[in-house]
Amino acid sequence: MSRQVKPGYARALDIRRGRVDLSHGGGGRAMVQLIRELFARHLGNAYLEQGNDGTVLPPLPGRLVVTTDSHVVSPLFFPGGDIGCLAVHGTVNDLAVMGARPLWLTAGFILEEGFPLADLDRIAASMARACREAGVQLVAGDTKVVERGKGDGVFITTSGIGVVAESCTLSGAAARPGDAVLLSGTLGDHGMAIMSQRENLGFDTPIHSDTAALNGLTALMMQHADGAIRLMRDPTRGGLAATLNEIADQSGVGVLLDETMIPLRPEVEAACELLGLDPLNVANEGKLVAVCDAALAPTLVQRMRTHPLGREAARIGTVIADSHHFVQMQTRLGGRRMVDWLSGEQLPRIC
Amino acid sequence: MSRQVKPGYARALDIRRGRVDLSHGGGGRAMVQLIRELFARHLGNAYLEQGNDGTVLPPLPGRLVVTTDSHVVSPLFFPGGDIGCLAVHGTVNDLAVMGARPLWLTAGFILEEGFPLADLDRIAASMARACREAGVQLVAGDTKVVERGKGDGVFITTSGIGVVAESCTLSGAAARPGDAVLLSGTLGDHGMAIMSQRENLGFDTPIHSDTAALNGLTALMMQHADGAIRLMRDPTRGGLAATLNEIADQSGVGVLLDETMIPLRPEVEAACELLGLDPLNVANEGKLVAVCDAALAPTLVQRMRTHPLGREAARIGTVIADSHHFVQMQTRLGGRRMVDWLSGEQLPRIC
Repeated sequence: MSRQVKPGYARALDIRRGRVDLSHGGGGRAMVQLIRELFARHLGNAYLEQGNDGTVLPPLPGRLVVTTDSHVVSPLFFPGGDIGCLAVHGTVNDLAVMGARPLWLTAGFILEEGFPLADLDRIAASMARACREAGVQLVAGDTKVVERGKGDGVFITTSGIGVVAESCTLSGAAARPGDAVLLSGTLGDHGMAIMSQRENLGFDTPIHSDTAALNGLTALMMQHADGAIRLMRDPTRGGLAATLNEIADQSGVGVLLDETMIPLRPEVEAACELLGLDPLNVANEGKLVAVCDAALAPTLVQRMRTHPLGREAARIGTVIADSHHFVQMQTRLGGRRMVDWLSGEQLPRIC
Repeated sequence: MSRQVKPGYARALDIRRGRVDLSHGGGGRAMVQLIRELFARHLGNAYLEQGNDGTVLPPLPGRLVVTTDSHVVSPLFFPGGDIGCLAVHGTVNDLAVMGARPLWLTAGFILEEGFPLADLDRIAASMARACREAGVQLVAGDTKVVERGKGDGVFITTSGIGVVAESCTLSGAAARPGDAVLLSGTLGDHGMAIMSQRENLGFDTPIHSDTAALNGLTALMMQHADGAIRLMRDPTRGGLAATLNEIADQSGVGVLLDETMIPLRPEVEAACELLGLDPLNVANEGKLVAVCDAALAPTLVQRMRTHPLGREAARIGTVIADSHHFVQMQTRLGGRRMVDWLSGEQLPRIC
């Protein structure tokens, strides 16, 4: 990201009115200029300034945890966020729910020819803000450009590196019958924010994405209940239903949810009803599910509620023995229904 | 990549005739099936089988080096390779030229709706083969799908993690006047392979991409000349010209090349002449430039020639003092010309 250019050769980039063109991906002077005048202005730091093909990092105080996610959300800007902060949060959260402390990110940008530099600038600024807030640094980057009609504005693939204590044993396979299932807050906010924007639904109360970095909340939880937390997950694509089905399969257990305990914003519930969607299948970008020792659940929920991103935390269910590994829900009306993951696609390009 | 699915629910993926659809990116059953039956079949390993949001890795025996690259090469399949092996080689090489031992890769796939599963299968197989040959493992992955016309078949963003000895001091800023400039082999093979494929040029001798993992060659070089090598780089996008200009800027020196010493395949030279391209600007994907202590250059070139990827290694120039940081070339005819980097774009989507 920090490749240097001989000064004085090129006019300054016109960020206000300029557009991405193929030369910005060519490895020559135009690419260097884009990196220096747009990306590095927001995201520059001593790591990127090493300016070599790879970035050398300081020693890690623990075990390495790695993750990656490509982000193709459409629209790029939505109420509560944009693809830039989403790409940071998504990767930070995958590390956070592993019990890791997120440290470093890499980002690969695939830009479509003609994309406004002003939008790219907003996205880079949003990434930089999200990195600062989450306490992570971008340590390597790459930019490619594809012809008009061969991409869609911008795609961002972030990889994340974090460090986890030797003592941490969180695993999707660690849930046991009798454990409590906790949720950190309301369901479906991100998915319905995207959906209402895309369908041009003008609700009275606009729905905002919940996109946020969860590493502060997970650190608080780990600090107070390290040994008693079996696992954490962020229910993104596929929603809570997919996440709990994954956990049920990995741990070889069933899950029984209590519908009355699942926090839901009235406007999200209304939008889901209008569009015929089940909030359990809708994506979240700032929520986590935790499975923990039931004895510790009340204390852990109280702790979570002291954090801004856990104010509406609740125990929403229980892990049960079930050789079929089914996820079921006790409904408000008293019956039980199966909570399966979707076989098809409900909301394409949600993240 | 290893998310599990309840067995027996879905028909097997039709890899021979099937196509990517939006459900393959939805986080539900179809995505899990694609990952399990296509990606994991080729790329599966114990790391991916952890099946959590991040992958926990063993302790690193040295300093961490990180890099990332998005790959958007068009066409996806070309003489000598495809986007799959290229995505592995590109990232492995960025680590290798840092003097690092590449260990782990992550991969984010952005698929276009309608892309043939058979092609994706070929690409995954090619990535797996390239990983095996380079001795690296894919430790985390992600798959997204965009609508038809919003992507171009497949884009792959790879990040790489390697480890480098504490004693290694390679840096783009370390070249000094008097140092020798070495090149590991012929120039321009990758770029001209893509170009001749794209332009449907039927040369008598088909041009093959040089795409290859350089970590074997760099390890050999480091072993024999650790302290005397100032830096290594792989001249990809922008070619040798861009790479040497970067080095000249970073080190605050000039470079003088000797055209008669630069290895070039006759068919590449002919194709460049036909298309009016300068081989110094054309991308390579399996070559490296090294700057080293001139006293050591002859021995190092001999060593490089013992490796299959260094058989045509040569000393191609000298680092000189130059306050303008110019790269110049003594031509075959005896004159000197400037070797500048391109300001625009010569060959879009070369990698």
